[in-house]
Amino acid sequence: MSGSTFGKIFRITTWGESHGPGIGVVIDGCPAGLSLCEEDIQRFLDRRKPGQSKYTTRRNEADSVEILSGVFEGKTTGTPLSLLVRNQDQRPRDYGNIASLFRPGHADYPFTEKYGFRDYRGGGRSSGRETIGRVAAGAVASLILKELGITVRAYTKAIGPYEVSDGDIHYDQISENSFYMPNNAVAEKAGEYVSSLMADRDSCGGIIECTADGLPVGLGEPVFDKLDALLAQAVVSIGAVKGVEIGDGFAASRSSGSKNNDPFFSENGVISKKSNHAGGTLGGLSDGSRLILRAAVKPTSSIAKTQQTVNISGENAEITVLGRHDPVIVPRAVVVVESMTAVTLADLLLQNMTSSMEHVKKIYT
Amino acid sequence: MSGSTFGKIFRITTWGESHGPGIGVVIDGCPAGLSLCEEDIQRFLDRRKPGQSKYTTRRNEADSVEILSGVFEGKTTGTPLSLLVRNQDQRPRDYGNIASLFRPGHADYPFTEKYGFRDYRGGGRSSGRETIGRVAAGAVASLILKELGITVRAYTKAIGPYEVSDGDIHYDQISENSFYMPNNAVAEKAGEYVSSLMADRDSCGGIIECTADGLPVGLGEPVFDKLDALLAQAVVSIGAVKGVEIGDGFAASRSSGSKNNDPFFSENGVISKKSNHAGGTLGGLSDGSRLILRAAVKPTSSIAKTQQTVNISGENAEITVLGRHDPVIVPRAVVVVESMTAVTLADLLLQNMTSSMEHVKKIYT
Amino acid sequence: MSGSTFGKIFRITTWGESHGPGIGVVIDGCPAGLSLCEEDIQRFLDRRKPGQSKYTTRRNEADSVEILSGVFEGKTTGTPLSLLVRNQDQRPRDYGNIASLFRPGHADYPFTEKYGFRDYRGGGRSSGRETIGRVAAGAVASLILKELGITVRAYTKAIGPYEVSDGDIHYDQISENSFYMPNNAVAEKAGEYVSSLMADRDSCGGIIECTADGLPVGLGEPVFDKLDALLAQAVVSIGAVKGVEIGDGFAASRSSGSKNNDPFFSENGVISKKSNHAGGTLGGLSDGSRLILRAAVKPTSSIAKTQQTVNISGENAEITVLGRHDPVIVPRAVVVVESMTAVTLADLLLQNMTSSMEHVKKIYT
Amino acid sequence: MSGSTFGKIFRITTWGESHGPGIGVVIDGCPAGLSLCEEDIQRFLDRRKPGQSKYTTRRNEADSVEILSGVFEGKTTGTPLSLLVRNQDQRPRDYGNIASLFRPGHADYPFTEKYGFRDYRGGGRSSGRETIGRVAAGAVASLILKELGITVRAYTKAIGPYEVSDGDIHYDQISENSFYMPNNAVAEKAGEYVSSLMADRDSCGGIIECTADGLPVGLGEPVFDKLDALLAQAVVSIGAVKGVEIGDGFAASRSSGSKNNDPFFSENGVISKKSNHAGGTLGGLSDGSRLILRAAVKPTSSIAKTQQTVNISGENAEITVLGRHDPVIVPRAVVVVESMTAVTLADLLLQNMTSSMEHVKKIYT
Repeated sequence: MSGSTFGKIFRITTWGESHGPGIGVVIDGCPAGLSLCEEDIQRFLDRRKPGQSKYTTRRNEADSVEILSGVFEGKTTGTPLSLLVRNQDQRPRDYGNIASLFRPGHADYPFTEKYGFRDYRGGGRSSGRETIGRVAAGAVASLILKELGITVRAYTKAIGPYEVSDGDIHYDQISENSFYMPNNAVAEKAGEYVSSLMADRDSCGGIIECTADGLPVGLGEPVFDKLDALLAQAVVSIGAVKGVEIGDGFAASRSSGSKNNDPFFSENGVISKKSNHAGGTLGGLSDGSRLILRAAVKPTSSIAKTQQTVNISGENAEITVLGRHDPVIVPRAVVVVESMTAVTLADLLLQNMTSSMEHVKKIYT
Repeated sequence: MSGSTFGKIFRITTWGESHGPGIGVVIDGCPAGLSLCEEDIQRFLDRRKPGQSKYTTRRNEADSVEILSGVFEGKTTGTPLSLLVRNQDQRPRDYGNIASLFRPGHADYPFTEKYGFRDYRGGGRSSGRETIGRVAAGAVASLILKELGITVRAYTKAIGPYEVSDGDIHYDQISENSFYMPNNAVAEKAGEYVSSLMADRDSCGGIIECTADGLPVGLGEPVFDKLDALLAQAVVSIGAVKGVEIGDGFAASRSSGSKNNDPFFSENGVISKKSNHAGGTLGGLSDGSRLILRAAVKPTSSIAKTQQTVNISGENAEITVLGRHDPVIVPRAVVVVESMTAVTLADLLLQNMTSSMEHVKKIYT
Repeated sequence: MSGSTFGKIFRITTWGESHGPGIGVVIDGCPAGLSLCEEDIQRFLDRRKPGQSKYTTRRNEADSVEILSGVFEGKTTGTPLSLLVRNQDQRPRDYGNIASLFRPGHADYPFTEKYGFRDYRGGGRSSGRETIGRVAAGAVASLILKELGITVRAYTKAIGPYEVSDGDIHYDQISENSFYMPNNAVAEKAGEYVSSLMADRDSCGGIIECTADGLPVGLGEPVFDKLDALLAQAVVSIGAVKGVEIGDGFAASRSSGSKNNDPFFSENGVISKKSNHAGGTLGGLSDGSRLILRAAVKPTSSIAKTQQTVNISGENAEITVLGRHDPVIVPRAVVVVESMTAVTLADLLLQNMTSSMEHVKKIYT
Repeated sequence: MSGSTFGKIFRITTWGESHGPGIGVVIDGCPAGLSLCEEDIQRFLDRRKPGQSKYTTRRNEADSVEILSGVFEGKTTGTPLSLLVRNQDQRPRDYGNIASLFRPGHADYPFTEKYGFRDYRGGGRSSGRETIGRVAAGAVASLILKELGITVRAYTKAIGPYEVSDGDIHYDQISENSFYMPNNAVAEKAGEYVSSLMADRDSCGGIIECTADGLPVGLGEPVFDKLDALLAQAVVSIGAVKGVEIGDGFAASRSSGSKNNDPFFSENGVISKKSNHAGGTLGGLSDGSRLILRAAVKPTSSIAKTQQTVNISGENAEITVLGRHDPVIVPRAVVVVESMTAVTLADLLLQNMTSSMEHVKKIYT
């Protein structure tokens, strides 16, 4: 079944394997007249590129994007955008070990059971490289949002147990450390933690937070396509994400109604909320406040420590996953979470356009 | 835009408002030949009925379901099932107050902004009664699962800060207390807590846990329609849910790879995992272990305490939400989470049937 | 698989069998703020009601519609519209004969093969009564079109070999004869023809033409969701329709480019075409001219003449289809073709709203 | 809106413009384990290649396909297939004339109105080259059908007024003439006709017939996704197709029930029909007989004859469409009709797998 498409109007369809000829995405439903060039997309892709710090794999890939369709004289034409990134680092090597063993924490076993066999080269379709298509699409979605004054921003909230508390967030520090954390001091401690794990052939996870400002009120479609529900799908569909929460999230479950409800108030004719425990959604629709979500990322599954497992013949075995692996994928996943959020918002902005006869008449009369 | 449909093959479309003539669901794509009668569905609906304990609203509704189509001589025909529940408790009353004020924590404000006006009677489409369609569909999905030996079970993990720890779960006690908690002792404390909140005109939330046993390996569709991604959408789409996690979820973000990876082992030709931090999914596909998810439910928004808000003219005002409201909706939402899980699983089971030529040939040759 | 839904934004999901409790449709994605009452829908349903002339079945059904959701104080709310028509004429009778025989020209045989059994009462889901949901949805779609100045009109072009030629069309005569033909003289001859067939226990078919005026230029989505492609699906999905053509259709295949191309011209700043062989679409998009399509309807399959067939045990047998059947379904199908055209247009009007950044900015800035 | 995707399980998404970097398709939902190599696809693409006879454009394109993803060790993996054909003949030339004029019979005018501007190079997305993605997908679909013993075959039924009558069809002659007609004698007359039109700078159309043998009974999904309804969409979505009919089609509208109904009979336990006026569908489901459809193709719009038109400033003007154009596109469209039929059938075969609990249990127990 076709699970490679996301979105209803702004629809993205990703394809590609880690060690095949390339990776890409087709975006159908992008409105015509949006200024777009390859650099706009490359800027996003560069944020997820490997080899940018000592905490990421040194796999050497330029990940250059080519626009194959949908743009004419610098503007989108309304027809599908096809974006291609060629895989460069396809050096032939011995996958024999990986080919015959199911790596713990990986999709090897269920893929083999589902399809009868699997592309064992570097994880195939389950590789982190799959996110290239998401990020390329996110770049395009972000341009639409930008034209409407909407800003999406993701960063690392926590690396393992090292978390930036809400009061200590400094946006200007995000790009100043290897972890994209809004606090250099916490990032430094996180760095020491990750280094010690690397020495121990181990790995860790973390939490990514993403916000969106400038959203109109009313985005999201009741009942199943609520803003928060689609964001939940979008974010949990990223490999290694094991949980998502909106606003206070799980903490809200321990609060009381009188504390958790955000009171409305009006000032100079503008309706706002005095607090934002809700994280920007009410009844699944955007409420005009900042959208806030957090994604829990599990520790990297590929570790060099010896683990117990089973081979494809069903016999017990041991495995040591060698090769180039990030000790923590959180920093590189930041732009993926931001991209999936942007794609979801762009789609819901387009969906919302048809919500009332007033809108319909604005376009047609 | 059409956000009232969920699923790709087993597709449910819900409709209905709290105080309109009725609530219902159309299920298209249910396989033919499934035994189904109204009692099968009623049993599920009765679990979400109000008025069952002192902790739920005393609204008096029978919520009797009628099957309008799709069943012939006790079996589904393969054509759409239309299920209808008439609203009975539509007593005319004064909504004037609610009609002109935006209730904090409710969808009143964004609905009004999105559509230009709203059905203010009892929350309209955002009412908890909207879940009747979900639960009716969940009853049908559960019958499919049952025929394949799959069991879905949801219960209350926590009421406010009162949580049943993983080691203290007693399934046989779930039906023995008003909160559907698998631990009567914790439930008793939770009861005292809720009673004190009621006295204080306040409310609370909690956590619902849901498990599924007996799943075949490989359910879920890469990339965007992963099992956990669709469950995330399904569960977060339920009103008042602010977060979802699979397996260790947010705790996994603080663990290490060597601890979080579940080692495989083989015994008598059966492949299993020694632990289940993953909660039953690997790479977004079911891995043969127990599926585990948790949903964070916020405190009931409707509280009798006076709150600050804004009226539809944009002026500051105060509101006291009177009427029949649950001090905590968690107990009644348990069957909703279970239903959405069952619907998601039924759909992915059908989707997975077309995953390989081996399956195709099993059907056609 | 779920084949009971049509449309992407204005989405209709029909349900119901001929002899079950009722028939209905859920419309999701109807914009908020449209004035709608039951009479608006009833007017359309009355046009397909049986028993209106000596050429239609005398089955006595009021076919009264009830709006179950989605309307508040006379206006659509943006939430799903659920429309219900109860089946009244469910008198118990002996279906034994029909139950065990496959009627020629009917879906009995493939339904039984597909699903393992079938609801044999009156054709079940394949009954002409299935179109009630389509017509109810068409009534709503037509109200949207009306607000934008778009008029859809269907009529009978031919009954058997009796065809109204293009030059002889008189719209004012459509409602003056039993066949909804725009020419009373041809209708009279058609009446004699049908009477003779009835005497002979036989039946006939015909051609329905449908036009739409006032369409904006550019409706339809390249590549697969072209205006004409979706109309083709919409119309051929109506039972008994065996062909569809746009503009000159099959005749165009025998023409030449220089004759078939419609020259553009400009007058007072308005671009028009000098002819309309294309029937209002160019490249699958509306071109501002009148939309013209024709549907070929096969002769009624249910005839009282004895026919050869096979029973459900696979033995050769004879069948005489008794009961209440229209000798020609064309007149009652006219409103169905009009409805499906209206639904398709309404959906494409909404889809087209998101086609350009210019539109996006019109809504959001 | 996203109109570039077709199918629900076997989903194809095409992209690409005539004079951009390339053309392609992503196929999501192809079952794993299907043998597939580039030659399988190339064989289909070669059938639509230009320059193969004096009646087609001499544009020189190799149209070589590259498989970018979804195949591992010669078999599909169950993940999306991405197929790419680079455009080679992108020689820079003067489009000035075409850029500022709306070509009669082309999509220039509605595209410009819809999107605000258009890619005027060679028709952009409306070019016949768009069908490359369809044919590449059709090649893959045909391999699935072949494994199930299903054969799809298309050919030219008529070129302008020169039609092969049903009794004169010789399948072995299809590949013996430039028109893919199953009758060399008619093809010869058609050749003379086309030559005379070419001399006159004119063009013509024709009719393509497509059959499918070996279909299981019951393909197609009631109500809107009937086999014939989806085929109608699939075929009319091909540029230049103005009509479609199934079986006797429009002729059935002039027949009587007693003649048009196909009697069933049983022989050696096999149920068949004595005639096939229905063209292989009953109630929109395949009935086990040969599937027969016909598509009406309009004359090529690009003719060198001078025509009246309007320029993009809305002024009256004359146009002479120069360049490389087929005087009749029917021969090259034959494989496109066959491909769209194959894609539709493959999708419905997969959809039908989930139709009954009997099927479900065959896979899971």
